[in-house]
Amino acid sequence: MKIPVAILGATGYTGAELIRLIDGHPRFRIAHLAAHSQAGKRAGSVLPGCGGHIADIMLAAADAPLPDDVELVFTALPHAAAAASVAACIRQGRKVVDLSADFRHQTAAVYQQAYGIEHPHPELFEQAVYGLCEHARERVAGASLVANPGCYPTSTLLPLIPLLKAGVLADAAIIVDSKSGTSGAGRSAKTDLLYCEINESVKAYGLPRHRHAWEMEEWAEGFSGKQVRVRFVPHILPMNRGMLTTLHLSGQDTGNWHALLAAAYQHEPFVRLLPVGELPSTAGVSGSNRCDIGISLLSDNEAVIVSCIDNLLKGAAGQAVQNANLMFGLDEAMGLPLHACWP
Amino acid sequence: MKIPVAILGATGYTGAELIRLIDGHPRFRIAHLAAHSQAGKRAGSVLPGCGGHIADIMLAAADAPLPDDVELVFTALPHAAAAASVAACIRQGRKVVDLSADFRHQTAAVYQQAYGIEHPHPELFEQAVYGLCEHARERVAGASLVANPGCYPTSTLLPLIPLLKAGVLADAAIIVDSKSGTSGAGRSAKTDLLYCEINESVKAYGLPRHRHAWEMEEWAEGFSGKQVRVRFVPHILPMNRGMLTTLHLSGQDTGNWHALLAAAYQHEPFVRLLPVGELPSTAGVSGSNRCDIGISLLSDNEAVIVSCIDNLLKGAAGQAVQNANLMFGLDEAMGLPLHACWP
Amino acid sequence: MKIPVAILGATGYTGAELIRLIDGHPRFRIAHLAAHSQAGKRAGSVLPGCGGHIADIMLAAADAPLPDDVELVFTALPHAAAAASVAACIRQGRKVVDLSADFRHQTAAVYQQAYGIEHPHPELFEQAVYGLCEHARERVAGASLVANPGCYPTSTLLPLIPLLKAGVLADAAIIVDSKSGTSGAGRSAKTDLLYCEINESVKAYGLPRHRHAWEMEEWAEGFSGKQVRVRFVPHILPMNRGMLTTLHLSGQDTGNWHALLAAAYQHEPFVRLLPVGELPSTAGVSGSNRCDIGISLLSDNEAVIVSCIDNLLKGAAGQAVQNANLMFGLDEAMGLPLHACWP
Amino acid sequence: MKIPVAILGATGYTGAELIRLIDGHPRFRIAHLAAHSQAGKRAGSVLPGCGGHIADIMLAAADAPLPDDVELVFTALPHAAAAASVAACIRQGRKVVDLSADFRHQTAAVYQQAYGIEHPHPELFEQAVYGLCEHARERVAGASLVANPGCYPTSTLLPLIPLLKAGVLADAAIIVDSKSGTSGAGRSAKTDLLYCEINESVKAYGLPRHRHAWEMEEWAEGFSGKQVRVRFVPHILPMNRGMLTTLHLSGQDTGNWHALLAAAYQHEPFVRLLPVGELPSTAGVSGSNRCDIGISLLSDNEAVIVSCIDNLLKGAAGQAVQNANLMFGLDEAMGLPLHACWP
Repeated sequence: MKIPVAILGATGYTGAELIRLIDGHPRFRIAHLAAHSQAGKRAGSVLPGCGGHIADIMLAAADAPLPDDVELVFTALPHAAAAASVAACIRQGRKVVDLSADFRHQTAAVYQQAYGIEHPHPELFEQAVYGLCEHARERVAGASLVANPGCYPTSTLLPLIPLLKAGVLADAAIIVDSKSGTSGAGRSAKTDLLYCEINESVKAYGLPRHRHAWEMEEWAEGFSGKQVRVRFVPHILPMNRGMLTTLHLSGQDTGNWHALLAAAYQHEPFVRLLPVGELPSTAGVSGSNRCDIGISLLSDNEAVIVSCIDNLLKGAAGQAVQNANLMFGLDEAMGLPLHACWP
Repeated sequence: MKIPVAILGATGYTGAELIRLIDGHPRFRIAHLAAHSQAGKRAGSVLPGCGGHIADIMLAAADAPLPDDVELVFTALPHAAAAASVAACIRQGRKVVDLSADFRHQTAAVYQQAYGIEHPHPELFEQAVYGLCEHARERVAGASLVANPGCYPTSTLLPLIPLLKAGVLADAAIIVDSKSGTSGAGRSAKTDLLYCEINESVKAYGLPRHRHAWEMEEWAEGFSGKQVRVRFVPHILPMNRGMLTTLHLSGQDTGNWHALLAAAYQHEPFVRLLPVGELPSTAGVSGSNRCDIGISLLSDNEAVIVSCIDNLLKGAAGQAVQNANLMFGLDEAMGLPLHACWP
Repeated sequence: MKIPVAILGATGYTGAELIRLIDGHPRFRIAHLAAHSQAGKRAGSVLPGCGGHIADIMLAAADAPLPDDVELVFTALPHAAAAASVAACIRQGRKVVDLSADFRHQTAAVYQQAYGIEHPHPELFEQAVYGLCEHARERVAGASLVANPGCYPTSTLLPLIPLLKAGVLADAAIIVDSKSGTSGAGRSAKTDLLYCEINESVKAYGLPRHRHAWEMEEWAEGFSGKQVRVRFVPHILPMNRGMLTTLHLSGQDTGNWHALLAAAYQHEPFVRLLPVGELPSTAGVSGSNRCDIGISLLSDNEAVIVSCIDNLLKGAAGQAVQNANLMFGLDEAMGLPLHACWP
Repeated sequence: MKIPVAILGATGYTGAELIRLIDGHPRFRIAHLAAHSQAGKRAGSVLPGCGGHIADIMLAAADAPLPDDVELVFTALPHAAAAASVAACIRQGRKVVDLSADFRHQTAAVYQQAYGIEHPHPELFEQAVYGLCEHARERVAGASLVANPGCYPTSTLLPLIPLLKAGVLADAAIIVDSKSGTSGAGRSAKTDLLYCEINESVKAYGLPRHRHAWEMEEWAEGFSGKQVRVRFVPHILPMNRGMLTTLHLSGQDTGNWHALLAAAYQHEPFVRLLPVGELPSTAGVSGSNRCDIGISLLSDNEAVIVSCIDNLLKGAAGQAVQNANLMFGLDEAMGLPLHACWP
């Protein structure tokens, strides 16, 4: 028997990826698809990649009641909008993986700093678990509400945490220079996301402080116990998927860092550490739930670490399913693509 | 127990896609990977998208003996080179899906016309089955050697065959105007395939007569009994995957053509017919094994039909696995992606 | 002394290209830039490519009065909106090159068929000249109002007209299969023009009958005296600029067609005929005002002709400046790029 | 009378851009085009974007004698190969702008460190001038041999030099994180430059120390007198042109940095400083000889500076022509595009 699942916000890029993963999952099945502005349409008319009977599902309104038997809800909604839906689902006794930013912070104060609004449901903070799977496995397994990490924080925290824990990084701010495919910017009709504006161009954005900087700092400390300051500069690139984060790091004994990362991740199905000096590309992870990590040593106390994820998979829908697997006691890797869809 | 499979020519784009599909297939497993020029290297060092233990497989030489227990071989080799490998595998009693052009024709004479060389193994023609699955299911099920159709012929024949069978097309040559992503051109280091030569450009090629024109004509007649002449113009586009074929058709009673296509394909898992007037995009099939078909009626006797496939899936590795499923009596759709990897 | 020029609709993609050309033109200078929705902003804040003092020009409202000394106006406005501006400028005694579709047709009836609205200023039809420069030179030179041809018609008519005039084409409908970069779709914030919707995809659109089909038929006859029917299928491609049109042609003595084209265009600065069998790419004309034409002979009575233009240059702003040069008695090629901006 | 110019290495991407600029230049004309591997072919057969009579020029062999009247030679050759050609041209009394790396360093020792080979013509170091135009104007004006700066150093040095001169940067290593279009990697047929390998992907390369790091450090000190250490990480992006460099900087009084940059560049035609907080994109400079610079202040002592150039223009052929203009006493901006070719 498959577990019935609802996806709220099904017609964005992350929603589409959730549909693809859940429909191919051995133990979950799609029971409900909701989409604010597209309610009443066939899923296939809004999502060109949807095939089979999924394409024929009628999209429900955002606030339509869920079928009673839905046990698991993925909320792929804009921040603030998500919190209300999450609260309702939790009240109804369902498990929730929230892909918005609404429950990624531990206090309403930081949330308000980062997102500029008062948090509508701070009472849920206590039960929300930040679902960076490789470092939160046990807590996620027991959670009803998992806050799925942001894409930039995922690509940053995975390489950072083992080094922070080992205490080998210098105290200075950590330089995080990230490059993201455009699907991360969402599916809204904005002039600056038009094909001809993005194609054949690259730009930095979100300065002086992108929202994800707070998330990186909070959870770098949360997982390592070390206070951290990041200087984070994201860039948008002319490609659909993929995120590459370049960490410019200072510290000590860089010759030992590869071993620290290897110790942390050698048995992880979705983290691949390349040999010293080899650097990953986003093509290697696009369509996969993997995070590929490479390190280049500049000197005894300087190194560059590059990590790559598919922003829609390990950076969103993939990690969400990985969390859901943990929440339901399933094999953590179930239904998740290991190989990239390359080229 | 999974069936052990070998892939010869594992490091091209089609080979990479075969690896991804076979490693995720419930009943097949990768037992042997061979690659002419990369023998002795780790698969992962040549194929950036490969994860898990597959990345650690050592690539065998093209002529290395296969493990005894290999029951199924995919040959993703250049034409002419493929025939020798196919012949050896058949002699050893293994089943073969050949993704080259070597066994797509029924006579050595046509092969020689199309490919300019004498066929090295015409004795195998008799047992080779042309594996356009939707129209060759029974023959494929009993075959030891399946010739996997070319990408252009697949995208052309699927919409054409039901109309040809119904006798509604005019006698004139059929205009086939195809647009292909660049992965169809292979992974050889050629100047005209460099990023900067392909990007931001489109061109026609292969004129006056592309090799696939013979294949289209031979099998249009083979499946419909009607002799057909095509005027085929392929174009190469700045995208990795995807193939769109525009058929400019004349005939009679075009108002009935959608029904003819619906009757042929309504129960097919991998052919999706859109409502009259809706036209597909390659984004809708990229990463999926589907062929999407749309029709627009210009008049009672003129229509445009557009079909879309992923050239690496329904146009190559996907259809190859579909054929393998049939050859081993498995569910034809097993291990094959239905939804596109979108966007 | 440079001639003062106004550009109405300066902030679309065609407007931007006009600015680039006019600011680099030896005999024209920009005196006025207007833009409906961006009035009051600096040009540089809306047009990232604008440099120098042009970036500091304040954008005027669409209906702001023009400086008295403006002699030439380019209207790069949506159809219907353009006609009113054109009428005002003509009343004020200025010369106009209209890049909209409003004056491309010779009767209000055809316009209404193609555009679905009643024409607001049919009284101007009489003085409007259809500015396909290579075939309308003398008329353009004496005109006050030039209707700049559409991009698809330009790429189609240039290769067709010499063949039509020679009477070598069969009577059947002419198959026109065009592929266009996305800048041709304009700069409006629409979901289906978002980067992630266009990138890595191709689709046909505008069926069963795109507006430019009327324009093609009207001017094929207008320039050749032969009545023509086209079956026109446009496609949108993942690239910014460039348009390739594939003509699938039937007729007689195809071996002579190259000579007919050569005779028509051998002295034209902006039409380049490739040797028989060589086919152009859009990369070869992107950033240039050229139209490149190639022909492949399939048989004595069948041929494929491929023509390439930059949709923003020979397909819009470039041809507009070419027309303006003619209207002011200047060297027709003045200020127009001959070489592509390649790669 | 135009000055006759030779281009050695005319068929690479930089060579093509030089042809375009020189053929459109009011005071230079192309007298000789040479290309190692393509000698004997028509320029147009190798360079699709070439139009007019330039396309009909026969490519000379690399070592063919130059016409006697050639006064200026652009060498767009691989490093080491360039030095020999440069030496010959200098002996013959011609002026040379060398676009290779051969004369960018002041000592043979640094050259050998960076390029791994002994310098073949160190005797020319004395007369070579490093042509970062905005900071070397007088020296270039009197030079016979100008070493055209590398693309990465150009995009890095322009924003850095005014800050270094002012002494406001901290002593720590400067983090230089650059993103380059693929044309910078040249036109050689290499597998890792194939369309399908680059498209939809980003990767870092050239670590732990890219050759341009030496050039940056040498000339940061050369122009400012301050010793500097850079930590430079270049990335290759899926776009033809464009280079964006992100400088992660520490120092003091960041609130004053914009004024320092403004003072340095306010009268420069090819450097555009954006208002504080606005950041440039490569689309804004693609096809232009401009360098656009933006700054975001993170705190009193931390800032991010982003600079954008077209790697083929200000990063190569454009700056080369700017240098040539200076060497011949012409208007420095002559024949150079100010506006981007956008979109």
